[in-house]
Amino acid sequence: MKAETPDFPFSSKEELDNYFPYLMNRLATRWAFNQNRALAGAEVQGAKMRILSCLAACKELTINQLSVLSVTEQSTTSRTVDQLVEEGLVKRHINKSDQRIRTVRLTPKGFKKLVTISPIITELYRDLVSGIDEQSVRTCVRVLQTMLENVREHEI
Amino acid sequence: MKAETPDFPFSSKEELDNYFPYLMNRLATRWAFNQNRALAGAEVQGAKMRILSCLAACKELTINQLSVLSVTEQSTTSRTVDQLVEEGLVKRHINKSDQRIRTVRLTPKGFKKLVTISPIITELYRDLVSGIDEQSVRTCVRVLQTMLENVREHEI
Repeated sequence: MKAETPDFPFSSKEELDNYFPYLMNRLATRWAFNQNRALAGAEVQGAKMRILSCLAACKELTINQLSVLSVTEQSTTSRTVDQLVEEGLVKRHINKSDQRIRTVRLTPKGFKKLVTISPIITELYRDLVSGIDEQSVRTCVRVLQTMLENVREHEI
Repeated sequence: MKAETPDFPFSSKEELDNYFPYLMNRLATRWAFNQNRALAGAEVQGAKMRILSCLAACKELTINQLSVLSVTEQSTTSRTVDQLVEEGLVKRHINKSDQRIRTVRLTPKGFKKLVTISPIITELYRDLVSGIDEQSVRTCVRVLQTMLENVREHEI
């Protein structure tokens, strides 16, 4: 069965409550707010936290790649990386195979920082998926992956 | 089966690609960008579009309710409503049962504006759900509804 299209403009709150982009926007904004609040004491909020996490996962990234994956504007990514270098949490590298390519890597101190906040992230995530069975979460992740492939404009 | 917790910090791109909050953040940002670009010619982008849509669905809302539902800061909601009043797309009302309650409603002109952009929204949505079966979209909507209930701090 193909996905139905929404009957826009909506004529009831119920229709709005069933509209995927509305739910996603509300949830993404609330999640970012709650996460930043929970991380307030840890000195790694917002872009900093996303950039460190992406580097942990991907090991070595250019500013351009980091900007896409951390969903942070390129200028903010550059500025945040400067701050993280100063704090000793990341290091700039020159790619061995192509010296024109400048990349960023996590330092052991940066990795430790992420390990420190890991319990906070885990608890936030547990609250988020509370009462939802694993299979439904997995279906949702697959749906979001396909949607991202449908609309994204970057290869990564 | 209860939902698993992520193994944060992630140690591969694959783990990142399977992490719900990461996917949601990338998708929500891309969706908002694409929608604004598609609506560039229609003079109803961003907060304007979200506020009009919420009013179509809910008929009558206070600024506070509008701010929550349209995921827009209260001050921006107020300012945008002022602009929409000037354009004749919404009207301010005094609640009949409690005169202290000021609400906002869509005008017929505001509704027509939404009807005008309806084909654009429908096409964007079709692109988003392309290749995804209806049942998976519905599962995903249910998951997002439960997640929102888990984390939200407003009753609406």
